[in-house]
Amino acid sequence: MDKNIDSIQPIIWRDNELLLLDQRALPHEQIWLKYDNSDEVANAITDMVVRGAPAIGITAAYGVVLAARQAWNSAGSNWKQAISAPLIKLASSRPTAVNLHWAIDRMTMLYETLSDTESPEDRLLQQSLAIHAEDIAANHKMGELGAALLENNNTVLTHCNAGALATGGFGTALGVIRHAYSEGKIKHVYADETRPWLQGARLTAWELQQDNIPVTLQCEGAAAALMATGKLDWIIVGADRITAKGDVANKIGTYMLAVLARYHGVRMMVVAPTSTIDWQLHNGADIPIEQRLEQEVTMINGQQISPFGVPALNPAFDVTPAELIDAIVTEAGVVLSPSLENMLKIKE
Amino acid sequence: MDKNIDSIQPIIWRDNELLLLDQRALPHEQIWLKYDNSDEVANAITDMVVRGAPAIGITAAYGVVLAARQAWNSAGSNWKQAISAPLIKLASSRPTAVNLHWAIDRMTMLYETLSDTESPEDRLLQQSLAIHAEDIAANHKMGELGAALLENNNTVLTHCNAGALATGGFGTALGVIRHAYSEGKIKHVYADETRPWLQGARLTAWELQQDNIPVTLQCEGAAAALMATGKLDWIIVGADRITAKGDVANKIGTYMLAVLARYHGVRMMVVAPTSTIDWQLHNGADIPIEQRLEQEVTMINGQQISPFGVPALNPAFDVTPAELIDAIVTEAGVVLSPSLENMLKIKE
Repeated sequence: MDKNIDSIQPIIWRDNELLLLDQRALPHEQIWLKYDNSDEVANAITDMVVRGAPAIGITAAYGVVLAARQAWNSAGSNWKQAISAPLIKLASSRPTAVNLHWAIDRMTMLYETLSDTESPEDRLLQQSLAIHAEDIAANHKMGELGAALLENNNTVLTHCNAGALATGGFGTALGVIRHAYSEGKIKHVYADETRPWLQGARLTAWELQQDNIPVTLQCEGAAAALMATGKLDWIIVGADRITAKGDVANKIGTYMLAVLARYHGVRMMVVAPTSTIDWQLHNGADIPIEQRLEQEVTMINGQQISPFGVPALNPAFDVTPAELIDAIVTEAGVVLSPSLENMLKIKE
Repeated sequence: MDKNIDSIQPIIWRDNELLLLDQRALPHEQIWLKYDNSDEVANAITDMVVRGAPAIGITAAYGVVLAARQAWNSAGSNWKQAISAPLIKLASSRPTAVNLHWAIDRMTMLYETLSDTESPEDRLLQQSLAIHAEDIAANHKMGELGAALLENNNTVLTHCNAGALATGGFGTALGVIRHAYSEGKIKHVYADETRPWLQGARLTAWELQQDNIPVTLQCEGAAAALMATGKLDWIIVGADRITAKGDVANKIGTYMLAVLARYHGVRMMVVAPTSTIDWQLHNGADIPIEQRLEQEVTMINGQQISPFGVPALNPAFDVTPAELIDAIVTEAGVVLSPSLENMLKIKE
């Protein structure tokens, strides 16, 4: 695959520290923040230095490494007790993404097997590096599987940022777009700017520009008019949580796109690793939806837009029922026409 | 009707000058700009000092008064020749709103009957004041007719600003909302922020707050999720141009709402004076859609959001086909299930 379509790495472990590309400063500045404390990593997740379900999981896994180091340094052989408070803070840093819990659980299952009297850091670090590498590998696999669903010269729309920046690298939805573009299957990408946080304008536009993939930005309100022109073939998005029957929680506006896509005969693809699937949940209605601060809507770049005192709704996610989705692409395979029965085929 | 639900007047003629409330500075500053030159009035329309189809028409009518004064002062009895260039500039200040041409045509029909050897200013001013007063009266009438379609305690969503600020006063969509609220028929209003220009956040939220009507702001991407909760009864919007069969050009995002409303069983009301109807056009596809500068999308409040060099689509309007509209409310009556046949009933 062409090297220049895979140029972005948002999470790096180097010299015993976690480095995060501060996504709040993109696209105008590339600022790397360093972390050697797990509480600060949890704050970085809450404050959206890093965002995107897979990236949050990987970051949290590295956060567990830092928590273990702190616990060992402060409590010695009582480190398993000392680690619990920082882990609770990490686990509660964002409520919707299931990958966060998945990653922390995986790290917890490992450390529970470790000796009380040896530093756990190295073993945990090996596992977080493995989680990170597996995520990138899964993204390449999904890129391949998702691209196979496209015809030649398709025009696609993506929402929010499910790119390298939202993952360990390469991206989920943007991984499919990268792969398909490298095979000549995509001629143009439209990116919703994605209010209120403007991940599309700030991050997706930047990622695709970095990799020379032609992208045009639009406001969400213009998506329906674009579909009415008949120009769009696919909508390709990521996911923050997928239920056992294939309902998908993703960035607010995804459900809007799914309804509009069905009305206009545009196909809807969700791309997410199996770690995003919450097999415990059946109905999308049971997914907890994070309500974020009103100020994310009422202020832009630190400037107040609306009159003071007018409240704002700010749900970070919405739920798209499985019936509106044409394909869920995971590293374990593609689920066409998602349903409990079809989803179970990739569980095994 | 309760005085405090009708507190905003955006266009005032005083001391031989036109005063416009600068809508670019709202809601944080109330700046009145003064105009005594028609070219500057045309620029004010292009630059969106004033916006909203009816308000543009009224402003242009006052612009014709100023153009006539200039033409009389500079050319005397040749004023009808001298007025044509400024009128062309006024007529081309915005392409989509049909009220602009309607108002200029009405002024032109009058001045063509006037003497070459007398100042036309007074007669034209009387007519522009009449156009202004008729607009406000029409809005009150539409308020009454539209409110009659609602049940008690309805929850409604509006898009962009079709309020006092978009008209001579009282508003079209917000006129219905004002009237219905005063009758206890509306318990809550949601307002889309309406990217890229944020008319909902800046103007609609401000107008409703001024009149103590409960309003909550949301991003367009959240509208579908709100509809999925079953809370919404009506979507109430204005129009920039309506065709003979009832297709409606309105702010980008309106078509999105109409598709989503139909899917969720929410009703869709368009409120606009008959001056908005372009009886010459049948199909919405023939309405010219203004494409505005990319910078309205890529920059917010003077700050660049997206990476330099990434293009943006910025259609100012979209077209909603008549089939997706439940009611078009005009001062001449309500058109239910709009079609050519049903529209013609209000033409007479």
